[in-house]
Amino acid sequence: MAVKFTLIKEVGKTRVGFIETAHGVINTPAFMPVGTLAAVKAMTPDAISSTGTEIVLSNTYHLMLRPGEDRIERLGGLHKFMNWQKPILTDSGGFQVMSLASLRKVTEEGVMFRSHIDGHKYNLTPEYSIQIQHKLGSTITMAFDECIPYPATFQEAKRAMELSMRWALRSKNSYQNKDGYGIFAIVQGSAYQELRESSANFLSAIDFDGYAIGGLAVGEPQAVMFDVLDYTIPLLPKFKPRYLMGVGKPSDVVGAVERGVDMFDCVIPTRSGRNGQAFVRNGTINIRNAQYVEDIRPLDSECSCYTCSNFHRAYLRHLVRAKEILGSILMTWHNIHYYQDLMKELREKIIRS
Amino acid sequence: MAVKFTLIKEVGKTRVGFIETAHGVINTPAFMPVGTLAAVKAMTPDAISSTGTEIVLSNTYHLMLRPGEDRIERLGGLHKFMNWQKPILTDSGGFQVMSLASLRKVTEEGVMFRSHIDGHKYNLTPEYSIQIQHKLGSTITMAFDECIPYPATFQEAKRAMELSMRWALRSKNSYQNKDGYGIFAIVQGSAYQELRESSANFLSAIDFDGYAIGGLAVGEPQAVMFDVLDYTIPLLPKFKPRYLMGVGKPSDVVGAVERGVDMFDCVIPTRSGRNGQAFVRNGTINIRNAQYVEDIRPLDSECSCYTCSNFHRAYLRHLVRAKEILGSILMTWHNIHYYQDLMKELREKIIRS
Repeated sequence: MAVKFTLIKEVGKTRVGFIETAHGVINTPAFMPVGTLAAVKAMTPDAISSTGTEIVLSNTYHLMLRPGEDRIERLGGLHKFMNWQKPILTDSGGFQVMSLASLRKVTEEGVMFRSHIDGHKYNLTPEYSIQIQHKLGSTITMAFDECIPYPATFQEAKRAMELSMRWALRSKNSYQNKDGYGIFAIVQGSAYQELRESSANFLSAIDFDGYAIGGLAVGEPQAVMFDVLDYTIPLLPKFKPRYLMGVGKPSDVVGAVERGVDMFDCVIPTRSGRNGQAFVRNGTINIRNAQYVEDIRPLDSECSCYTCSNFHRAYLRHLVRAKEILGSILMTWHNIHYYQDLMKELREKIIRS
Repeated sequence: MAVKFTLIKEVGKTRVGFIETAHGVINTPAFMPVGTLAAVKAMTPDAISSTGTEIVLSNTYHLMLRPGEDRIERLGGLHKFMNWQKPILTDSGGFQVMSLASLRKVTEEGVMFRSHIDGHKYNLTPEYSIQIQHKLGSTITMAFDECIPYPATFQEAKRAMELSMRWALRSKNSYQNKDGYGIFAIVQGSAYQELRESSANFLSAIDFDGYAIGGLAVGEPQAVMFDVLDYTIPLLPKFKPRYLMGVGKPSDVVGAVERGVDMFDCVIPTRSGRNGQAFVRNGTINIRNAQYVEDIRPLDSECSCYTCSNFHRAYLRHLVRAKEILGSILMTWHNIHYYQDLMKELREKIIRS
């Protein structure tokens, strides 16, 4: 039996539940920190766990280039490689092939591209993407898709969505079922309701273990994203987890949870942390600002993370300005903890209401 | 009463003991990781403590420029600032003024220089250096000295040593005694026995709380360093700790302990770690090397550090090559632990013999 999703409570479109997997339980709505290269940047696995994180995301595109899926397989899989025993979701490589690789050529078969690291040529197909994710030992595998920029013409969005649907079917067909593991499909169609509906209906008719909404968080306004969620989510199977890919800022996450999304991933907490931005309960803080130079308060007085329990803003400002690695560690640690607190509060609010 | 040194056992010139301070006990021979900018690079205070570290060193020169001693004082001192409650030794700035600052001018009064960060002009004198260290709240303050390059002519070494002796006296005179805190003198004289003896005798006649050997680890061969220790150390007070500044590689540390040194500091474990070099029981490992690409052994099978307990060489190689911050964290963590294990083994060997 694949990963198993249980709904605990629904309030309108909003819902709380949990996913049982071979690597443990994921409480939803869930946020997945991004561990692109088999490491969440600046975080040890112990530090990640301490934030309440129950699942991390890693990137197929990056790992296939370096250190390579065969190597990770020989070393016992991604969980063992990075010493993270909880669930791991891997994306399919589709998004990053489009954003990072050079000399891309999309055909019916897949995407030919050259590595952004050494120029080596690859042909990433749905079958190959699924095989890579299988070798990595991903708890949750993502179907291979074509992710196009925003805005896109209707014709371009239609072509890419229809190709992605054929690829989703090929992904599903090449996926090997394994107890406690699962494969998620990805709805595409840019900001066109007709295309999103068509995609959602097509995928819902196939028995995937979860459903992602892709092609968002690519530069569109928040209102457009919410609009897509408003008309797409009701078409997805109720008893399967819904995952909004690459999202987002706290307000994006809150709005998407209100619209029935169960899972998120985003580099914002980690990347912002390294750049000196902290998420706090009343907004954000740019710790480089002069106003924090002798501020002895923690980043967020309501936060119980390692950073807020031990260090004040003045010290963090000093570290970030001095480019100390410890600054990246502590800011990242807080931000992930902040996101996990946010998810926990959202879950508790639904339970209580 | 100042910091208090107790000798537990002597075997020939080698000795084991402990220093009681306002911030806790330091078992000797002791190794101090370097926290230049109020942070041991890539390490949280918890991580540092887990290695067995009992004292860290921080740099007066760096802290006076950024964030400034007055700021740290207003924020409650260096211990509170960096959340490190165990002892801190600060150098006097003398060494780094010579190696980092621009437009230096040495006079009887002190050293005029410009900051390597913003060109701001400073006049660092013995009195000012001691005042900075006082404001930082250093457990152990170092006398201000002039550290010259190696090799130096006899005349140059003599001039700098004699100036350093006058500065040591001025340092001592401006130092404010405080229970559990102390001030160490620094023997100079390059590789000239006559000068080292003169310096050691001069300082021994003054009641410092400890004695450092400076002006080594500046490019001289190990044999020269050991030679200097051979004729200098017997002239130092027996019941005061002896600190060999800026040293060194494990073999340097072992040889210096055999010659009666009690304390060390060096950037080698931290800097090497960030560069991918690990210290292990049978030598060193450059983790970037191809031979480790699928090596599932820990860095050092006898090591109990966080890194060796949780990660293998293949993963560390991947992290370091991919420039992941986690690579710097884990390699640094291991190296400091390795050094602390070495110190512990040296202490136990003396006790047992």
